[in-house]
Amino acid sequence: MAQLPGIGKRTALRLVLHLLKQPEERTTFLTQSLIQMRTEIKLCDNCHNISDEMVCAICANKNRNHELICVVEDVRDVMAIENTGQFKGIYHVLGGKISPIDGVGPSQLKISSLVEKVHSGSVKELILALSSTMEGDTTNFYIYKQIITQNITISTIARGIAVGDELEYADEVTLGRSIIHRVPFENAFKNN
Amino acid sequence: MAQLPGIGKRTALRLVLHLLKQPEERTTFLTQSLIQMRTEIKLCDNCHNISDEMVCAICANKNRNHELICVVEDVRDVMAIENTGQFKGIYHVLGGKISPIDGVGPSQLKISSLVEKVHSGSVKELILALSSTMEGDTTNFYIYKQIITQNITISTIARGIAVGDELEYADEVTLGRSIIHRVPFENAFKNN
Repeated sequence: MAQLPGIGKRTALRLVLHLLKQPEERTTFLTQSLIQMRTEIKLCDNCHNISDEMVCAICANKNRNHELICVVEDVRDVMAIENTGQFKGIYHVLGGKISPIDGVGPSQLKISSLVEKVHSGSVKELILALSSTMEGDTTNFYIYKQIITQNITISTIARGIAVGDELEYADEVTLGRSIIHRVPFENAFKNN
Repeated sequence: MAQLPGIGKRTALRLVLHLLKQPEERTTFLTQSLIQMRTEIKLCDNCHNISDEMVCAICANKNRNHELICVVEDVRDVMAIENTGQFKGIYHVLGGKISPIDGVGPSQLKISSLVEKVHSGSVKELILALSSTMEGDTTNFYIYKQIITQNITISTIARGIAVGDELEYADEVTLGRSIIHRVPFENAFKNN
């Protein structure tokens, strides 16, 4: 128990003592659920999102735009974007970002399957939605270079001041970018 | 002293005792500087930024684009945007935002002089760079309604994820907007 992230020796002890207090079935139920989760949840064949089918619910949804792919780092980003309710395309989960320090190179990520998808001609627009950290930017450029020859739109999410934030507390780079990429006033409050 | 913002009774006492320890000229110098500042610094006739001339250094600079006006709340926003080094137009300082709760209506702000400027035909683009709080949005719309009949571009600064931020920590509204207002990848790193 203590080997799980965020759970130290004391918390582990507390959890184990709690299980001991409960009837034995509770523990059996928990372990069975965990095993079931581990065997039944797999990665979507198409976008590498977690799924209990071969193809995840998002990729299987015919109402979504399959020509618009949003490239994200991991499953949590898919959840975050889905929560906004603003995106009607499908995803491609890379499973991380290129980070030589951590020993993560392009081959460990799902980049080749993305490039194949683009080369197959089934994609019209690719949104690169990685974090704008050094690793994220490196990964963006790596992908960009591999698909620039293809005739598709490549975009990246807007950088700027968070909605509700005051100007004077923003960092200079973000504020500068939010001025360069200003949007027409009529479009600013549109939701699609 | 204790009536200055952020200075309580104890700090005021400390400051006063410090002045008493120093030679008397120091206090005279401080008071004279304060009076000089109060009399000599005025608001720019054109943009209402602080200035020691009738027209501030930014408005007087002929290398700046006088057809591009950035509308901001107060002088601190001018400083924040100037620090980015990304803006080559001039400013218009409103001196606040419409806020009925605080008793601030449009007439207390420098809105009519802005509308006059626009109607005189000397403006090509107006960037509304107010905070995206309720008061900021109200002020934006108030200004927008007064100048929509004019043939100029009205834009607003981009909202989105701050540069360097991770996706999963962004609030939903900001993340949603950053996807809607995504920018072409080639433009994302351009600096003008």
